[in-house]
Amino acid sequence: MKALVFDGRLSLADVPLPRRDGEALIQVRLAGICNTDIEITRGYGGYRGVLGHEFVGDVVECPDTAWTGRRVCGEINAWCGHCVWCRAGMPTHCTDRTVLGIVDRAGAFAEYLSLPVRNLHAVPEEVDDEEAVFVEPLAAAFEILEQVPVNSTDRVVVLGDGKLGMLCVQALRSAGARVVLVGKHANKLSRARALGLETRTLQERVPEPADVVVEASGSASGLQMAISLVRPRGTIVLKSTVAQPTGIDMSPVVVNEVTVVGSRCGPFDRAIAALQRMEVAVRPLVDARFPLDRAIEAMERAASPGTMKVLLEPHP
Amino acid sequence: MKALVFDGRLSLADVPLPRRDGEALIQVRLAGICNTDIEITRGYGGYRGVLGHEFVGDVVECPDTAWTGRRVCGEINAWCGHCVWCRAGMPTHCTDRTVLGIVDRAGAFAEYLSLPVRNLHAVPEEVDDEEAVFVEPLAAAFEILEQVPVNSTDRVVVLGDGKLGMLCVQALRSAGARVVLVGKHANKLSRARALGLETRTLQERVPEPADVVVEASGSASGLQMAISLVRPRGTIVLKSTVAQPTGIDMSPVVVNEVTVVGSRCGPFDRAIAALQRMEVAVRPLVDARFPLDRAIEAMERAASPGTMKVLLEPHP
Repeated sequence: MKALVFDGRLSLADVPLPRRDGEALIQVRLAGICNTDIEITRGYGGYRGVLGHEFVGDVVECPDTAWTGRRVCGEINAWCGHCVWCRAGMPTHCTDRTVLGIVDRAGAFAEYLSLPVRNLHAVPEEVDDEEAVFVEPLAAAFEILEQVPVNSTDRVVVLGDGKLGMLCVQALRSAGARVVLVGKHANKLSRARALGLETRTLQERVPEPADVVVEASGSASGLQMAISLVRPRGTIVLKSTVAQPTGIDMSPVVVNEVTVVGSRCGPFDRAIAALQRMEVAVRPLVDARFPLDRAIEAMERAASPGTMKVLLEPHP
Repeated sequence: MKALVFDGRLSLADVPLPRRDGEALIQVRLAGICNTDIEITRGYGGYRGVLGHEFVGDVVECPDTAWTGRRVCGEINAWCGHCVWCRAGMPTHCTDRTVLGIVDRAGAFAEYLSLPVRNLHAVPEEVDDEEAVFVEPLAAAFEILEQVPVNSTDRVVVLGDGKLGMLCVQALRSAGARVVLVGKHANKLSRARALGLETRTLQERVPEPADVVVEASGSASGLQMAISLVRPRGTIVLKSTVAQPTGIDMSPVVVNEVTVVGSRCGPFDRAIAALQRMEVAVRPLVDARFPLDRAIEAMERAASPGTMKVLLEPHP
């Protein structure tokens, strides 16, 4: 099958079908390019193989035939079930996990992918493919609410006007928080305003220190800026993974007794329900669709400033 | 009066008595040199003036005469009482605060100091001067327990075998946690073992990832090491303030969903009670006492590797 492979450089390659014993084989309908994919091509995590972890597809083979033919999205961490973290109820932190397109598991920028059956989530009819492909990053946005209590009196700043920032703002707003999106791209901020979001540029002052700052800028300097925006004893949620170590002055974190919480994968059920109930708008974030044949061009487009979500279609 | 002043360089100077309207004037019995004092001489915080914030002394003048003549230690943040943080019950984060020997307020390496009456804590008879001078840093150690729930099943690592690390280990142990002190100085670690503490060198492997890691090394690389020692979804408590920004790879914080909590000043009552009940041993941490006249030499001694607490006596 065709797939986009990273082995130090990107190439479109013909690779074997990713069949794994006891798992479902899924024909990919749509896959989304995430900043993590771009960071991997810059060295993040040392991954080599088929990229991609955001997808919607159809189950074409499955040990549990009840799943065959169903339209699904899927959790990206495949866990062992018996290590100390799995037994502690933290399977996404499994010591031996593989992660779709990120750690030791061929990803979604391909005609087919393989995942354990327990990772699958059926996509309801009301959620179309262009929405379903956002379930994984939207779940990551909802993870914030699993980790940090946010209520309607909290002032929240989301730092970063990219696709992850846009999803975080919407997830937080659905919890009733007063959210301001702070970014540097005029075109992205105007799109955010079109979605009814309150926005600020980096140059505009945020009026008061925030109770919660979500760092979703994907920028090495994002944490330092988050530190400057959060109130004493406030919380910073770190969503971006950046390839390069960064010079950070952590002393304000100590002096202001700030809490910094790392945040990764989240609850698929909650993300699917939010799409089903139309509490979040993801389709306006789609900037382009490319056939898988043009995946390298699609990656370049996704990495260019000002671009939101770029989708790949393996079977256009 | 005599005082140790930092104005870009250290000097022993003759300065006016630090009288402030409505405050208590305290004759200093003993003052302790903290790493923060040393970091200030390296540029931390930009403070200029009389150094020192750990002390025990006698109230010699006070608007509330009930305090006159009493032996006291004192909270170091003087707050305004009407800013948003004071009104929110966070006076140590007051926007307009002055901080003894750290922000806009002459410190304790002097014959006398001034503090608001509400900052004073009487020292019980059972607690002698060499113990009472540890109340401020011991309170900072107890602050960890105000911020992070620690119980008897938690594996806790304290990183840093200096004086703050030794206080943190003892505060955490008093809460029933299983605590291991990790450090790099053989002489300090053997002193910790003499206090009954479990120790490891940096080279020895800590057997399992810790639930809580307290970074009290005062070293720029301490946070990165703490990140490598904490379990997924574990907590790092940052106690050290370091003058220089540091290159840190924060991506494991995101991937492992670690929580990093900055921690500063703490509850004096709890520290005094712990000393009174002899739950912690601080006198073994005293390495030297110098008269204030030799304060510059004392600072050099305090900054030299392997040294624990150095005390200053203004009225020997």
